[in-house]
Amino acid sequence: MSKLPNVATSIFTIMSKMATEHNAINLSQGFPNFPVDERLTQIVSKLAFEDVHQYTPMAGYPPLLNKITSLIKTSYARNIIPETELLVTAGATQAIFTTLLALLKPDDEVIILDPSYDCYEAPILLSQAKPIRVPLNDDYTPNWNTIANSFSEKTKMIITNNPHNPTGKILTESDLITLENLLEQHPNVVLLSDEVYEYITFEQKHISTHTRKKILDRCITVSSFGKSFHVTGWKIGYLVAPDYLMKEIKKVHQFLVFSVNSICQVAVSEYLDLVNINEISTFYQEKRDFFRSLLKNSRFQLMPCEGTYFQVVSYAGISDENDVDFCKRLITDYGVAAIPISNFYADGKDLKLIRFCFAKDNQTLEEAARRLSRV
Amino acid sequence: MSKLPNVATSIFTIMSKMATEHNAINLSQGFPNFPVDERLTQIVSKLAFEDVHQYTPMAGYPPLLNKITSLIKTSYARNIIPETELLVTAGATQAIFTTLLALLKPDDEVIILDPSYDCYEAPILLSQAKPIRVPLNDDYTPNWNTIANSFSEKTKMIITNNPHNPTGKILTESDLITLENLLEQHPNVVLLSDEVYEYITFEQKHISTHTRKKILDRCITVSSFGKSFHVTGWKIGYLVAPDYLMKEIKKVHQFLVFSVNSICQVAVSEYLDLVNINEISTFYQEKRDFFRSLLKNSRFQLMPCEGTYFQVVSYAGISDENDVDFCKRLITDYGVAAIPISNFYADGKDLKLIRFCFAKDNQTLEEAARRLSRV
Ligand SMILES: CSCCC(=O)C(=O)O
Ligand SMILES: CSCCC(=O)C(=O)O
Repeated sequence: MSKLPNVATSIFTIMSKMATEHNAINLSQGFPNFPVDERLTQIVSKLAFEDVHQYTPMAGYPPLLNKITSLIKTSYARNIIPETELLVTAGATQAIFTTLLALLKPDDEVIILDPSYDCYEAPILLSQAKPIRVPLNDDYTPNWNTIANSFSEKTKMIITNNPHNPTGKILTESDLITLENLLEQHPNVVLLSDEVYEYITFEQKHISTHTRKKILDRCITVSSFGKSFHVTGWKIGYLVAPDYLMKEIKKVHQFLVFSVNSICQVAVSEYLDLVNINEISTFYQEKRDFFRSLLKNSRFQLMPCEGTYFQVVSYAGISDENDVDFCKRLITDYGVAAIPISNFYADGKDLKLIRFCFAKDNQTLEEAARRLSRV
Repeated sequence: MSKLPNVATSIFTIMSKMATEHNAINLSQGFPNFPVDERLTQIVSKLAFEDVHQYTPMAGYPPLLNKITSLIKTSYARNIIPETELLVTAGATQAIFTTLLALLKPDDEVIILDPSYDCYEAPILLSQAKPIRVPLNDDYTPNWNTIANSFSEKTKMIITNNPHNPTGKILTESDLITLENLLEQHPNVVLLSDEVYEYITFEQKHISTHTRKKILDRCITVSSFGKSFHVTGWKIGYLVAPDYLMKEIKKVHQFLVFSVNSICQVAVSEYLDLVNINEISTFYQEKRDFFRSLLKNSRFQLMPCEGTYFQVVSYAGISDENDVDFCKRLITDYGVAAIPISNFYADGKDLKLIRFCFAKDNQTLEEAARRLSRV
């Protein structure tokens, strides 16, 4: 009997594979198709000949830990201690998996908003804990009343994802204050905030949960250089946690992976001196606006997109197919791959919504839009 | 309450840190200090500018999967199918952790030989399974009678490590046949064989467990390019498992890390075309012989070393201290770091043995031996 009987090959793998097989434009799985910043590739090319090929310390390459500390200094509501509160991980996925496995015990409950990204449930189930799904409002804002009512004696953790994949929704300052107040009533509940798209936000700026002073003693934030620096294949993420939680997380990390790819850690560390991380939002805002303007020529209806590099659209009125079948036909008949939004709902709810990744060069976006205008 | 109450910072982290602080020669944690093969660094330097920075497929970069298939073709007792039986992992540690977490259920028993490398217990405990330690003979050969008597109704898995860290012991063909016969009597028990030092063996050649045809239906082998190609920081390993087990392992891998560092996967793949993997043993045999001959001028007694890049020595007659204290004093008073062998015993047994890593340039080995000759 499987320990994860309901897990199948992820939709990202399925759609990317199908896109390749049908030579379709792949706007499904989230990854850029344009070249990486030449300053970053130059760093890697140079580093290849340097002494960067052996284990870094378990928690991460020390200069990188220091650079991350500087990076988050202004948002974190107190000083952080890199030695005991920071951990470099093999991508945000490993950060999340390790945290959940380290902290959850059998019968613990974890509040997850629905829809949500697909990597939270497996480590919860492998810890024999229980995911409690709380539906977002129809406009994807959190319903704080429903969330408040979902807390029980067994609630151990709540997971937020801000900016939110797949909907692009960003939590407002008022949301964060409500969350802070709610957690004050539940002093044993830990907050895990998945903020991997924190540097990809548009009109509204991202505010990290770790700006909220009163919950800092149990707030864990996860981020990803793969997303911010267009290098999803590098698998370099990190997490910030108060030391008593980090101690438990490191115990698992030590035997789960021990340390993280050395050359890419050093490269990120050096690049952090050169890059203006706030320019990433400007870059992607242009892409978003360009892609949205192109899609105006199609029958798809555009949903709002406040952050992330994903645009959700409705195909209601175009087809009655369920969103998985529609996505498959989009590949075979029109040569464009997308992700069905039902994938992000625990019950697979089909709202005739699909998600496109716009982290692509303009030519690709134009050709994709041309194809989509025929649908 | 911690899920891993007995886990502390690993001895490798402690000793490497202390070595740095005291500017000692670090022969503790296992990693090379000489330059990586220039052909490999050239590949990385060139790849930096290529399209190698986004997610590889979940199971690994396909050309690398094919190259691994060719690499193990002669030792694997049947044809393997790369798509369903191979997985590239973020180092062997992640391969082992993922396998144990995917396959072990509460109350399952796992036979581990004692002494053994330190990464097996945590994922067993996190699965609420139970490690059953079986002592090796005094010469570190497996005691097959004791092992046979340790099987119970609950035994789900046996873990072997061949060549063995820290003792360098290699299983003989006769050992493997005995193991095969034993497992035939226990048709539900899975064999996990940690073979990360398979390409570092001396007089006696390494024979993989997957040469044994009758147990191939439940034999999982783990290996590491970090060890074989002197790039421990890259964290590129792999595992081979029959498809019905691999299916469960991939379910966990998908949400634990999803995929593995892309640039280093491509680099390893290209390098496999150039390298003669059998030359690694010759290279390390020279190092071993050189280091052993140097240590003949000291009061340490050399234990046999059949494989791995570790040399175990006895300091009995030199000091009565326990091996941890002795290792600490070796750093502070003599400027050489080693690993105490008690670390590899479940009960911390102190046999006045310590382990040196000889994956170092000759100058370092000479200077270390000079310092050790003063002890
Ligand atoms: C790990 S593959 C999925 C990448 C991603 O974050 C997404 O497409 O949502
Ligand atoms: C993961 S750090 C330990 C490296 C190693 O394999 C050893 O020194 O035994």
